[in-house]
Amino acid sequence: MAASCDTVRMADFFAGVPSIAFKGPDCNEPLALRQYDASALVEGRPMRDHLRFASCYWHTMRNGLSDPFGAPTAQMPWDDGTDSLDNALRRVDAFGEFLSKTGIGFWCFHDRDVAPERDSLVATERDLHTVIERLESMQRSTGARLLWGTACLFSHPRYMHGAATSPDVRVFLHAAAQVRVAMEATMRLGGEGYVFWGGREGYTTLLNTDLRREREQLATFLHLAVVHARSIGFTGQLYIEPKPHEPSTHQYDSDVEATLNFLREFGLINHVKLNIETNHATLAGHSMEHELRAAIAAGALGSIDANMGTPGLGWDTDRFPTDLALTTQVMLAVLDMGGFTTGGLNFDAKRRRESFTPEDLVIAHLAGMDAFAAGLKVAAAIRKDGRLAAFVRDRYSSWQGDLGRRILSRGANLAELHRLAHDLEAVEPVSGRQEMLEDIVNQITIRALR
Amino acid sequence: MAASCDTVRMADFFAGVPSIAFKGPDCNEPLALRQYDASALVEGRPMRDHLRFASCYWHTMRNGLSDPFGAPTAQMPWDDGTDSLDNALRRVDAFGEFLSKTGIGFWCFHDRDVAPERDSLVATERDLHTVIERLESMQRSTGARLLWGTACLFSHPRYMHGAATSPDVRVFLHAAAQVRVAMEATMRLGGEGYVFWGGREGYTTLLNTDLRREREQLATFLHLAVVHARSIGFTGQLYIEPKPHEPSTHQYDSDVEATLNFLREFGLINHVKLNIETNHATLAGHSMEHELRAAIAAGALGSIDANMGTPGLGWDTDRFPTDLALTTQVMLAVLDMGGFTTGGLNFDAKRRRESFTPEDLVIAHLAGMDAFAAGLKVAAAIRKDGRLAAFVRDRYSSWQGDLGRRILSRGANLAELHRLAHDLEAVEPVSGRQEMLEDIVNQITIRALR
Amino acid sequence: MAASCDTVRMADFFAGVPSIAFKGPDCNEPLALRQYDASALVEGRPMRDHLRFASCYWHTMRNGLSDPFGAPTAQMPWDDGTDSLDNALRRVDAFGEFLSKTGIGFWCFHDRDVAPERDSLVATERDLHTVIERLESMQRSTGARLLWGTACLFSHPRYMHGAATSPDVRVFLHAAAQVRVAMEATMRLGGEGYVFWGGREGYTTLLNTDLRREREQLATFLHLAVVHARSIGFTGQLYIEPKPHEPSTHQYDSDVEATLNFLREFGLINHVKLNIETNHATLAGHSMEHELRAAIAAGALGSIDANMGTPGLGWDTDRFPTDLALTTQVMLAVLDMGGFTTGGLNFDAKRRRESFTPEDLVIAHLAGMDAFAAGLKVAAAIRKDGRLAAFVRDRYSSWQGDLGRRILSRGANLAELHRLAHDLEAVEPVSGRQEMLEDIVNQITIRALR
Amino acid sequence: MAASCDTVRMADFFAGVPSIAFKGPDCNEPLALRQYDASALVEGRPMRDHLRFASCYWHTMRNGLSDPFGAPTAQMPWDDGTDSLDNALRRVDAFGEFLSKTGIGFWCFHDRDVAPERDSLVATERDLHTVIERLESMQRSTGARLLWGTACLFSHPRYMHGAATSPDVRVFLHAAAQVRVAMEATMRLGGEGYVFWGGREGYTTLLNTDLRREREQLATFLHLAVVHARSIGFTGQLYIEPKPHEPSTHQYDSDVEATLNFLREFGLINHVKLNIETNHATLAGHSMEHELRAAIAAGALGSIDANMGTPGLGWDTDRFPTDLALTTQVMLAVLDMGGFTTGGLNFDAKRRRESFTPEDLVIAHLAGMDAFAAGLKVAAAIRKDGRLAAFVRDRYSSWQGDLGRRILSRGANLAELHRLAHDLEAVEPVSGRQEMLEDIVNQITIRALR
Repeated sequence: MAASCDTVRMADFFAGVPSIAFKGPDCNEPLALRQYDASALVEGRPMRDHLRFASCYWHTMRNGLSDPFGAPTAQMPWDDGTDSLDNALRRVDAFGEFLSKTGIGFWCFHDRDVAPERDSLVATERDLHTVIERLESMQRSTGARLLWGTACLFSHPRYMHGAATSPDVRVFLHAAAQVRVAMEATMRLGGEGYVFWGGREGYTTLLNTDLRREREQLATFLHLAVVHARSIGFTGQLYIEPKPHEPSTHQYDSDVEATLNFLREFGLINHVKLNIETNHATLAGHSMEHELRAAIAAGALGSIDANMGTPGLGWDTDRFPTDLALTTQVMLAVLDMGGFTTGGLNFDAKRRRESFTPEDLVIAHLAGMDAFAAGLKVAAAIRKDGRLAAFVRDRYSSWQGDLGRRILSRGANLAELHRLAHDLEAVEPVSGRQEMLEDIVNQITIRALR
Repeated sequence: MAASCDTVRMADFFAGVPSIAFKGPDCNEPLALRQYDASALVEGRPMRDHLRFASCYWHTMRNGLSDPFGAPTAQMPWDDGTDSLDNALRRVDAFGEFLSKTGIGFWCFHDRDVAPERDSLVATERDLHTVIERLESMQRSTGARLLWGTACLFSHPRYMHGAATSPDVRVFLHAAAQVRVAMEATMRLGGEGYVFWGGREGYTTLLNTDLRREREQLATFLHLAVVHARSIGFTGQLYIEPKPHEPSTHQYDSDVEATLNFLREFGLINHVKLNIETNHATLAGHSMEHELRAAIAAGALGSIDANMGTPGLGWDTDRFPTDLALTTQVMLAVLDMGGFTTGGLNFDAKRRRESFTPEDLVIAHLAGMDAFAAGLKVAAAIRKDGRLAAFVRDRYSSWQGDLGRRILSRGANLAELHRLAHDLEAVEPVSGRQEMLEDIVNQITIRALR
Repeated sequence: MAASCDTVRMADFFAGVPSIAFKGPDCNEPLALRQYDASALVEGRPMRDHLRFASCYWHTMRNGLSDPFGAPTAQMPWDDGTDSLDNALRRVDAFGEFLSKTGIGFWCFHDRDVAPERDSLVATERDLHTVIERLESMQRSTGARLLWGTACLFSHPRYMHGAATSPDVRVFLHAAAQVRVAMEATMRLGGEGYVFWGGREGYTTLLNTDLRREREQLATFLHLAVVHARSIGFTGQLYIEPKPHEPSTHQYDSDVEATLNFLREFGLINHVKLNIETNHATLAGHSMEHELRAAIAAGALGSIDANMGTPGLGWDTDRFPTDLALTTQVMLAVLDMGGFTTGGLNFDAKRRRESFTPEDLVIAHLAGMDAFAAGLKVAAAIRKDGRLAAFVRDRYSSWQGDLGRRILSRGANLAELHRLAHDLEAVEPVSGRQEMLEDIVNQITIRALR
Repeated sequence: MAASCDTVRMADFFAGVPSIAFKGPDCNEPLALRQYDASALVEGRPMRDHLRFASCYWHTMRNGLSDPFGAPTAQMPWDDGTDSLDNALRRVDAFGEFLSKTGIGFWCFHDRDVAPERDSLVATERDLHTVIERLESMQRSTGARLLWGTACLFSHPRYMHGAATSPDVRVFLHAAAQVRVAMEATMRLGGEGYVFWGGREGYTTLLNTDLRREREQLATFLHLAVVHARSIGFTGQLYIEPKPHEPSTHQYDSDVEATLNFLREFGLINHVKLNIETNHATLAGHSMEHELRAAIAAGALGSIDANMGTPGLGWDTDRFPTDLALTTQVMLAVLDMGGFTTGGLNFDAKRRRESFTPEDLVIAHLAGMDAFAAGLKVAAAIRKDGRLAAFVRDRYSSWQGDLGRRILSRGANLAELHRLAHDLEAVEPVSGRQEMLEDIVNQITIRALR
């Protein structure tokens, strides 16, 4: 991350936190990296290009760590608790310091988290403009780049019944206005993507909901966004971020396949990709691996919200991703896909409410970075080892013959296949060897990290 | 159900079970109907046309009620425990007696449940043919009609890795052969539909699976079936039955939207509808109501497997549907759709292992029939009352104006909407009134059933 | 609810809401009762004595309806948004109006919800005292009685790691002080019970937790409370309210049996009963029916938090209880127990965030009251019908003989039973008839409500 | 495992499987151990003494790998498919070969899995006796030891409504007879424990169940077993194995705390310990770590069924434990407890249905053994590193002072603590550092395995 001539405003909000360096696996210091060596090569590319870590403004700068049963706990020395413009600008400085010290190269934002909502759109947009300028400056001084931006279309009471899917057309207008401005701010900041998370684009009860109409409204909204992106020359990738529920009872973009179905139904499949979050995948009853593989098979994996849930808990706990098996699975999928293009690994993650110091914020990010760096190494080792891929290839080899290819090219019919089946010997199945394959992953994990 | 001149083979396997009659809500006899009066009119049509109850051969005739921890318990006086053809034919007689006594007008079957698998396809198909003849005769004598047929592509070890999605092309051949024969048997029996349930069309572990390839194989398989149906003049409806998992870790047709996505991706959306099962919906983390409404919105609801799960249990318990709130929701969706065409309510349900007598089999079906009849009455009363529908209509009324229509017809753009938003007054939300609507449902439920 | 000579301060915060009356099942007005007729007799006692409805201060007066993704929406015309004492007193008036208009006879409170926390305990307790006086006056004027009180030991940041289970002994002191004051306030208000809900008495991660020590701290805390209750002459019942998690990863009082185990282990079983909440039961993976029956079997059911969850959602949605099958199960258990003594049905329930008007607050309570009144009627009808109870009694009749009684009184040994088993004929099982019993419940439900 | 002079009957059922040897982490051969070096020392004791691996007869010898939707697939060259005594004896030989080749030192059995049930108890017991003799011989020849035995009280139809909790006293007799014989067989084989798993000791529906009575029957049954053990001089440990459900809707021994509650209520807490299974823990909504720590805190952890579930699936998948994070947590708990005494790690695990060869059986066990050996190394490294333990110790240090000790010894009262609280300064919380602790576990994991 090359620093430009702009000065990083170092107000030293993260006092005592040094510029974080890679110190290798034997270092015990909390404020150090042990696995993530940004310029170390994996499969011929530096780790930083594989991983494209991002920190998100809403958790890092704005999350006070309240929960439904308790008040905020986070220490935020950069924040005076007001919604003044000065406070908003000071947060930008603190974020710049954070990015600079941790060496995280990307970031993400919600419009209403970087700048406050005012009594009128005019006033709101004016203040947003001022903050965006400061963010541009922050980017120049730190070298950080914007992975994606988005508009917060779920927090204000007007959005209680949804934004694009609101029964009130005026709410749709408001949401449209907000997306226009947020998209243009994203473009100005050089953002590589723009995300839609439809937290209230769904229903609380079907008793008061016209599901068919609401999905059409949502599709219309996305079409407007696609057209607008083209009209302003925004070349970043648009993404939808699936989530099954919370706060809604059901969100229309509930998981990867529901979202793909929606995109196909409304002719959006070529315009929008997916930003997949681990904890959303698991809340939907899927593994993250499944959601990634399903999206990749459809050519629709764009970016990743890198966090993890807590097994047994039924809400979005957004923990920092420290599970090495998870990071291995994710990076194996990403490597198999050929790596990210516009996307990256956004830590849409928050510390526990009990980890409330600025230092915890840094430590939590470092823990996630190291876990993903380790996962990347293991994933690359699995690919180099080759046993898993060879097993899968061999397993389907019978389809490489004439018959298999003819069937898949639809050059056969049931009657013919029926006749061929009559001539078959009994089919001897071949073992799927799941336990052996799990053991191979363990073998390689242990070898790759030593 | 008009009886024909064929004789119902009444071996009296259900000794002590009389022909079941409607006896009204005050009757305490176990072997009676209290709510389901087949010819009583609801919304101008007889109940039997609304509900189109079916009993399935596999549970009613073949389910011994074993579970993973215990041996079969079911008393089956019609079954000598062998896989002889005689035994298979005797089961047909018993089933005819069951349908005749209960007055259930439709039935469903799996190929391998009506007739045994032999050492060769030739022998298997010969015996199946004989049984199908007996089933035709049974239909004539009882007046029962075939709601749908299907092929069992998951029980035999050859299908352990899937049928259409098997890594072994020979298994695909086998499955193709079986579907051809089962579809033709279904046609011969006048079946109004044909179902695909892909219990093993998925994966146990992604470590050994090429998900993209397997989904293509599955799509090819369905295309073959569509073409074959057309070539033989089968005009019944093809259905996919979604289920998220069990026995697989993930089934490709995991829920309504995953299945719709699959159908759209592979150009099958106009050829295949959905057969939706309550317990599969809930295992997928959805409400049955959601799955029905999602399918209806896509014009894809075909038929229903009428059962229910056990809250808190994570496997398919396939209980008989006795939950009045559930049957109300289902029938409200069906009435809103305009009723079934080819579809119906198939009791894909089994008694508990502890309810092992033939009488329990009858009682369980009657309990489900009465619960659905009550649900139908309540659903019709909700529609007649009109408060729910009016609430939903009014809620979206702002979209009926010029602006709303213009937006939905895509005659607007973000920049314009942004300008309009600037002129908006603050938007005052309107209450969603969920609690009031839930209470209205309770009010009508109580009134409709008295 | 007899009004005393005190004046109800009727500031008319619930404008447009009349005094709610029972108007019978055919009434369509939203602001009426259709099932709950307070003085109507069921099993010889008026409904009000069976149901003992309570409204809770925290949801009714203080819940702004924010959620983790959105700002508050609730209209609270009685609240000026400050933490002034005047505001706190005005809320008492509003609550009195609410109780008076709805005719709800009991209420519950958290200390910090009725009065604000100040900079010092002295100041906090002084203001609490003033509010308690106003609450006493409110009770006199409305006739409402306090079902139970409690202390909020989870919201303030000091309690982030638990209260009694905090690693910091000073936090334990604080919690002890708060409980002392809250219990004495409860006593002064004539409270019939005092509840402990240990929302953070558990852990977020076992990595930093000494589970054994924390449970001992919790037991010590409860012993202190028991001793204090005795020392001040508080004769109300102490309760623990189980919940498995949220906000904690695991709460030590996770469900009925975990709580009973804790009470037995630490010698508290004779001093503390349970306050069981439906949504907590289901979050723990149990049915409410199970939790009630388990508590009743242990003689430990004290009171009920009457709400319901949303199937498929993994957090505490605290919906108003409008599920008639649920209210039937609950009231059947309560009637079987012999009715409440100190306990009652506290609506620990909140409207949806989209139901934000004061009228919704009233409607939601009425919906819950009517649902429970209907459940009570059905439960009484099930008991009067007698078929369920007779079935269960007959089912175990073999244990009424000599052998059964001798075994249960431990007058036999394995060797003898082994010998007796050798002489047994094959045991013919008897059907459990689950489907018939479910149908009987449906039969009676329909009859009882007409 | 020292071989005695008895000959292992090596019929070579596991053809091609050599005697498995430790070959170190770089070995790629499937049939080798890479982490488990039986005699290598960890914390001064050989791995074999820490891990005490057991293979269970029911999965290894008897599980045909059927599932509710498919026929058996397992290749069992030792099994002729009959229930002849010869077949039962041949299985013993095959099991001996398996234990001998894999070097697994312990085993477990169900009575009805080692020998068939006959028409009379006399005949059944006679055949069981013959098989037990062969098992004794097998033990002598292989050196394998019996970890525990049990009786299968859930598979036969007579147990459909439960065994000890059956409504039919004659079923109780049968179960008592079976336990007597199984316990004596266990004793004869030198078994170090005896397990009760109450798969049907619960209910399918509460509608037909007297929960209070059934729990008393169950307690009586366990008392009989305790008394019998003493009377015959069986010094092995008795265990209950908790499971929440499946096949039952609710099992009385649903989790660790429910079981402890039961044991305390009925005076059994000093006689029975727990055998905890990972997949049962997770089905109950807990982490395995939680269940272990809860049992250890009560002094009640006896033995472990070492398997794992599949996240997202709601039934007992009983996979071989290959999750390194899980095995680390388990072994850390076991080391913290001081190691097993009578207990061990029983692989109550089955291969996937698609892994049907004898070789898969061996590979699956090896994968589990290596995963646990790796977990043991990491756990020992965590203890040696000391940072986690020190963090926890320091966290509670405020309780080491006079006040803390006085409170815990109950030498204080609420009034005094209230006064002390008034003098407190504001309490500054200390961070819980969860993210740092998770990262430390990752650091040590990586270091320990290289």
